Amino acid sequence: MKTRDDALKLDETDPLAPLRARFALNSQVIYLDGNSLGVPPAAAAIRAQEVIAHEWGEGLIRSWNTAGWSALPRRLGDKLATLIGANPGEVVVTDTISINLFKLISAALREAASRDSRRRTIVSERANFPTDLYIAQGVIDQLDRGYTLRLVDDPADLPDAIDDETALVMLTHVNYRTGYMHDMAALTDVIHRAGAFALWDLAHSAGAVPVELNDAGADFAVGCTYKYLNGGPGSPAFVWVARRHQDALAQPLSGWWGHDTPFAMQPAYRPAEGIARFLCGTQPIVSMSLVEAGLDVFLETDMHAVRRKSLALTDFFIELVQARCAGQALTLVTPRAHAQRGSQVSLEHPHGYEVMQALIARGVIGDYREPSVLRFGFTPLYTRFVDVWDAAEALRDVLTRATWREPAFAQRHTVT
Amino acid sequence: MKTRDDALKLDETDPLAPLRARFALNSQVIYLDGNSLGVPPAAAAIRAQEVIAHEWGEGLIRSWNTAGWSALPRRLGDKLATLIGANPGEVVVTDTISINLFKLISAALREAASRDSRRRTIVSERANFPTDLYIAQGVIDQLDRGYTLRLVDDPADLPDAIDDETALVMLTHVNYRTGYMHDMAALTDVIHRAGAFALWDLAHSAGAVPVELNDAGADFAVGCTYKYLNGGPGSPAFVWVARRHQDALAQPLSGWWGHDTPFAMQPAYRPAEGIARFLCGTQPIVSMSLVEAGLDVFLETDMHAVRRKSLALTDFFIELVQARCAGQALTLVTPRAHAQRGSQVSLEHPHGYEVMQALIARGVIGDYREPSVLRFGFTPLYTRFVDVWDAAEALRDVLTRATWREPAFAQRHTVT
Repeated sequence: MKTRDDALKLDETDPLAPLRARFALNSQVIYLDGNSLGVPPAAAAIRAQEVIAHEWGEGLIRSWNTAGWSALPRRLGDKLATLIGANPGEVVVTDTISINLFKLISAALREAASRDSRRRTIVSERANFPTDLYIAQGVIDQLDRGYTLRLVDDPADLPDAIDDETALVMLTHVNYRTGYMHDMAALTDVIHRAGAFALWDLAHSAGAVPVELNDAGADFAVGCTYKYLNGGPGSPAFVWVARRHQDALAQPLSGWWGHDTPFAMQPAYRPAEGIARFLCGTQPIVSMSLVEAGLDVFLETDMHAVRRKSLALTDFFIELVQARCAGQALTLVTPRAHAQRGSQVSLEHPHGYEVMQALIARGVIGDYREPSVLRFGFTPLYTRFVDVWDAAEALRDVLTRATWREPAFAQRHTVT
Repeated sequence: MKTRDDALKLDETDPLAPLRARFALNSQVIYLDGNSLGVPPAAAAIRAQEVIAHEWGEGLIRSWNTAGWSALPRRLGDKLATLIGANPGEVVVTDTISINLFKLISAALREAASRDSRRRTIVSERANFPTDLYIAQGVIDQLDRGYTLRLVDDPADLPDAIDDETALVMLTHVNYRTGYMHDMAALTDVIHRAGAFALWDLAHSAGAVPVELNDAGADFAVGCTYKYLNGGPGSPAFVWVARRHQDALAQPLSGWWGHDTPFAMQPAYRPAEGIARFLCGTQPIVSMSLVEAGLDVFLETDMHAVRRKSLALTDFFIELVQARCAGQALTLVTPRAHAQRGSQVSLEHPHGYEVMQALIARGVIGDYREPSVLRFGFTPLYTRFVDVWDAAEALRDVLTRATWREPAFAQRHTVT
């Protein structure tokens, strides 16, 4: 059986271990919730001071040009592109996932209808992250043209649900709750064979697993910078559109940042060429500037090295929990198969909420997802194997000592 | 004729003079562009460090609850409400003006159609800030139900343009280019008599002039925190909905932050009660936190004191320019009547772009707006009368010395 010394030895030979020093870590806790909110890069606090004191305070309005604020959505998008198999000019960092989904769903339905007006269905999963489904409903209600949202309960049912009435298939690559990872290339192929568009939500993929959007032939994607990319709380999201689609698409959030000549102050909207037409309004520059500090750490490694460590961490955690929490009412929710696993391990326990509260009280921060799921995120840039060991030990300790009382549902609402 | 000493004496008796110390000012420039981007409150840099090092770095995911991040849109909205004649629970700070306009225009058209399906027109001004018009076009195109945008060229033509086909009148209270201020109460009355909704853009009003949304009986408003409110570059915008409308309205950007129980992770959208349904996605917390530093300075004074100084500053500037730039090809664009003037002075000059470049080279930062307008914003919290004197002198100096060459149009594009 593995020992804590084995974990320490794994850390000694971990090629990513030096990157841990790039982060300002809270030494009081073992943080396994970087899939909800990443930690601060050490450079973030310094960058914030530069932006506030120098760029904002000294440069004032001039910094939109001289400090490159206007170019940030595209410049950060180009850096991020390297992590998701995209090309320069295909990604902008802007707005939120919800808003970017609204842009893409609207644009995709419009384009699909222009090709074949019978395509009136959006296919997704009932287990998708809720805001994705809410936004699809928002678009459908606004259009009021008989569109429907068709939800499947099992990923295996997706191919049968996609047919010649499907306009768009909207899937989250790695499920937020279970950690299940779709085969992006295979599903995109199924979607394209049916004549539909493929939209991928990369919230739990970007910076977590290798993503190859262009190799997979995907059409659209959105994602998040505040989880594995460590951009800061609520830092702006990103939107990707395959180059081949960009100039054909119109999206309804047609704000001035997406205009071809925003400062000519023309009363009529004329969309910019390329990905810029997926911008809308003025972006929160301080929050956006910190995204770069997170991306720059990734540029010191590559997603294949990150993936190797991610799988080693999650394998190690699964092995330890199996060995040391045997006999407990735990069910592994995350797939064992590497090809179907993101960078998290989810465990069901009938008293999941209380187990997580007890772990947090012991300084092991994961999170809880309704219903019954303990979710542990493993972020290879700053998580050590010894952290995995200590977290598994804390879980064992909590499970073997505790007695449970069912809390009121209202108490359970935590925040991601 | 007034002298620089007169200006210094006005500063000595200015009751707002002590508030200047609340800002981290660039002492090398006279900054008259706070209507494009306000200056940093001194508290902003400190607040950013607290948020990054303590709330994010130490608190990590827990800060969504323990540091009140989740409550920021409403908490800041309640503070901001006091500056615009709104009640607690009527304002949220979130997203951008463009996106908030999309929510409100969509909701208003839907509500108007439910009352009277013939109401298919949005009335606005051709001189409105372009993104407002672009977003209205975006909603209209998406709905594709015969809605039209009717633009008037003169504010005096508005009453005749508003009729029983009007669903919504969307106006910017203070025009970005001219500084012309509408009579909000009188126009809202005209709009309501015609049975339409009144949506006000307060981008150049909030923190600039007293606004009384509820007294005026207005329906909806949006505004900006990065101009007169000094929230930081691109800091989140705000949205106001009169309490009487909130629970009846549905808006299509139905993201999880607007859900009644966002963490129950239900697949179906159910809007929250009240103003929270106008939220959509996760907000940029670092940028949003800085908004509070700007709002807190306003809480040390009131908008009537701000207005008194604003009018004194703009009167003084107009008087000085008239006296000292007589004979120059300057035309006053901003109304002389106090009731029609925001907190800026705009002057037309055939070589406006070059004049502004020359002023900026002399350390007087205003901005230029196509075509031909020199725009000077007077922000009473940190602008001194002596700054007004020195700016007018610099303008006189530039105009009396310079010879002009017409620049290429492409060089003129500056950023607000």
